[in-house]
Amino acid sequence: MTSANGELDGVFSYVDAHREAFIERLIDYVRRPSISAHGVGIAEVAQFISGVLNNLGFNARVMPTDGWPMVYGERLEAEGAPTLLLYGHYDVQPPDPLDEWVSPPFEPTIRDGRLYARGVGDNKGQHFAQILALESLLAVRGALPCNVKVLLEGEEEIGSPQMPSFIATNRDLLHADLVITSDGPVDESGRSTINFGNRGVLSFELQATGANRDLHSGNWGGIVPNPIWTLVHLLQTMKNDKGEVTIDGFYDNVEPLSPLEKQALAKLQVDLADVKRSLNLTDLDQPLERGFFERLMSWPTFTINGLHGGYGGPGSKTVLPHEAFAKCDIRLVEAQTGDEIFEKVRAHVAAHAPGVKLIRQGSMDPSKTPLDSPYAAPIIRALTTVHGEAPILEPTAGGSLPNYVFTKVLQMPAFGVPYANADESNHAPNENMELDRFINGIKTGAAMVTFIGAMRGEVD
Amino acid sequence: MTSANGELDGVFSYVDAHREAFIERLIDYVRRPSISAHGVGIAEVAQFISGVLNNLGFNARVMPTDGWPMVYGERLEAEGAPTLLLYGHYDVQPPDPLDEWVSPPFEPTIRDGRLYARGVGDNKGQHFAQILALESLLAVRGALPCNVKVLLEGEEEIGSPQMPSFIATNRDLLHADLVITSDGPVDESGRSTINFGNRGVLSFELQATGANRDLHSGNWGGIVPNPIWTLVHLLQTMKNDKGEVTIDGFYDNVEPLSPLEKQALAKLQVDLADVKRSLNLTDLDQPLERGFFERLMSWPTFTINGLHGGYGGPGSKTVLPHEAFAKCDIRLVEAQTGDEIFEKVRAHVAAHAPGVKLIRQGSMDPSKTPLDSPYAAPIIRALTTVHGEAPILEPTAGGSLPNYVFTKVLQMPAFGVPYANADESNHAPNENMELDRFINGIKTGAAMVTFIGAMRGEVD
Repeated sequence: MTSANGELDGVFSYVDAHREAFIERLIDYVRRPSISAHGVGIAEVAQFISGVLNNLGFNARVMPTDGWPMVYGERLEAEGAPTLLLYGHYDVQPPDPLDEWVSPPFEPTIRDGRLYARGVGDNKGQHFAQILALESLLAVRGALPCNVKVLLEGEEEIGSPQMPSFIATNRDLLHADLVITSDGPVDESGRSTINFGNRGVLSFELQATGANRDLHSGNWGGIVPNPIWTLVHLLQTMKNDKGEVTIDGFYDNVEPLSPLEKQALAKLQVDLADVKRSLNLTDLDQPLERGFFERLMSWPTFTINGLHGGYGGPGSKTVLPHEAFAKCDIRLVEAQTGDEIFEKVRAHVAAHAPGVKLIRQGSMDPSKTPLDSPYAAPIIRALTTVHGEAPILEPTAGGSLPNYVFTKVLQMPAFGVPYANADESNHAPNENMELDRFINGIKTGAAMVTFIGAMRGEVD
Repeated sequence: MTSANGELDGVFSYVDAHREAFIERLIDYVRRPSISAHGVGIAEVAQFISGVLNNLGFNARVMPTDGWPMVYGERLEAEGAPTLLLYGHYDVQPPDPLDEWVSPPFEPTIRDGRLYARGVGDNKGQHFAQILALESLLAVRGALPCNVKVLLEGEEEIGSPQMPSFIATNRDLLHADLVITSDGPVDESGRSTINFGNRGVLSFELQATGANRDLHSGNWGGIVPNPIWTLVHLLQTMKNDKGEVTIDGFYDNVEPLSPLEKQALAKLQVDLADVKRSLNLTDLDQPLERGFFERLMSWPTFTINGLHGGYGGPGSKTVLPHEAFAKCDIRLVEAQTGDEIFEKVRAHVAAHAPGVKLIRQGSMDPSKTPLDSPYAAPIIRALTTVHGEAPILEPTAGGSLPNYVFTKVLQMPAFGVPYANADESNHAPNENMELDRFINGIKTGAAMVTFIGAMRGEVD
């Protein structure tokens, strides 16, 4: 243990000495757009990050799929030591609404110790920190303390549609003792965090049509159906104003929390007044009778991501619109599945608004790793070493990652170790990452690889 | 009577001989944008159309208001004859969505006997037909058979906010025996039509806000209120899926139909199958138990003109949006008023969603002229002369015009004599007017002025 910490000191000094160079390289990375939803820049960025891994001797390759490619590389030289799979994604969210960005999304800008750019927190700054951790370990020690596989996906932001088949056809290649993902934000308090699971997500679109063209609301109002009213009346049958999803059977497979999970949730702290102040809210959302963290982590949601129909310009326009759509996502918890809930949504729409078209856009099932997994210890130790205090343990995170392919298909424990600040504004304008957290992420990555390597012989 | 018809023959020949020249002049007029909602081109078009009237000896002027100006001109030379006020509006609707226009909205294009351009039917092609009628009468006869006042408004498409005060401060200037407005479409059957009233309209916007920025639906879903859900839940309390407006007291002042109105409604004909076919609809809107024409003309509506919030681009985006708005209009019938119904909407929103901001955008009260007014006769005769068959009599039109300022403030009978085809697509892409109807509008205008002039001594 002391020896491992001693060796780490040298690595940490190396990271500190290269702080400015590492930040410059991060800026170079996030400057490159890679928007999976629009197919922008994907191929170029896959080649780029594959090249970075190759420079570290990872024998990296860009592996084609039926969608955007995976980037995979490995160094398997620590005989007898555990094998760690590092997962991340090199694609980013679309940057709109553009006019709400203070600096353009693909012109990375440092303000007040943060780097502002689309994708800096979600997820480039986080997996790039892992890669720089490997680079720093190799530079200082000449070898990695455990075996490391790196998988970077290009479609996480559109729901990881290729992950299940890619994992299924590459079981041996991806086989490892554990997988670590650094994505999403740390706890609101700023303390480092380990996530043991994720909510799943199901995305779909509802499309309503009226006449074959926009009409005058005076000459046709009262006669011709209005697709916006159709969506309003359909949606209100799907979730009531108490926050309860009213789709038949929606909660059937929601599992009760385990005692360990209840304990962990009870330890989580939040300053509700501060949350409301920082978001400028007077009230939080229903159902208020469930606790903050239960609603956030262990309870399903139904979010309308966007609803658009008819006139949206300045002033008024007396138009009766002829089409409208709603984009929605439902966050799933164990043991709900995307297939199960989509079928329930389908049956509901067919019963309540048969004329509305329902389009499935993608899903990820939820995942959970037991809080008492033996691989939790070296991760807790790494975060404690870097931050000087023990991390918060989250039974599940609110957001979604395709971890179910690791926990349910590859049957390995999966841990989330986020490096980004809580107000990273991922999926929103002015996405940012605190540069100190980026640097600490590099150190955490180096410490995790070191302490997992030190488990040689302890597990199995 | 014969003499009047005889003189008209010469005027009609003159109109036919100038058909191409008149169409060219209409093209020149509609090529000029005059979008009141955006403040585009208004001053230029007011000057232009004032100049056209001046060339006819109408001593026209552009009269400033607190909004866009009025254009007014008059020729009062027919001593002892009635005075006719012609009302129209030189402003047009915004042209978006631009990508649905086959030819650009301000590049007038003739296809299949129709002229396509924003504002050609609503209202430039119609009041320009009246002006060319006066020009033709003057060219053939050297004088007008009745006294004529012309008032062209620049804010009809944004709810005529200045009309009430303008009318109130110019009572003497605008005093007349009747007012005729040519706007909106003729009956679906294509038969010419006289409207004896209009539904009113109240426009407002609902604005909902959540947090102070867009958030990630996974990291915040279940915790932070969603303004789109707020609007869905509010709107569904305002109108149910049976088409009934459920705002307290909404129907209190809806007047029952008079026997004459019931008779007139019963005479109106519609081919429901054809309406559905032409609009590509399988069903019409609720409440189906009320007849087609009652719903269209004599029953209030509640239309969502547009609802926008959150992501609207391609694919999916797991965002929890922070703002959403709905633009709405309510069509009013006698004796509802804009003030009354807005107050009821305000009370409803305050009770059901106090955090939602309600913005009044404008209103026009409904209006009605008795079906047995003596001035109906010369208008019926004019339409019968031009079209060879008696017009349809509509107790009210579905659309809204500021006619209440004529019927309720100036206390004169008001008649709508639309010249545009039923599928003119006013307020929508590909607005158009059949050129034959434009030419017949010129002839109708000339005939109305002639037959009203022939009433000299009959009324008063």
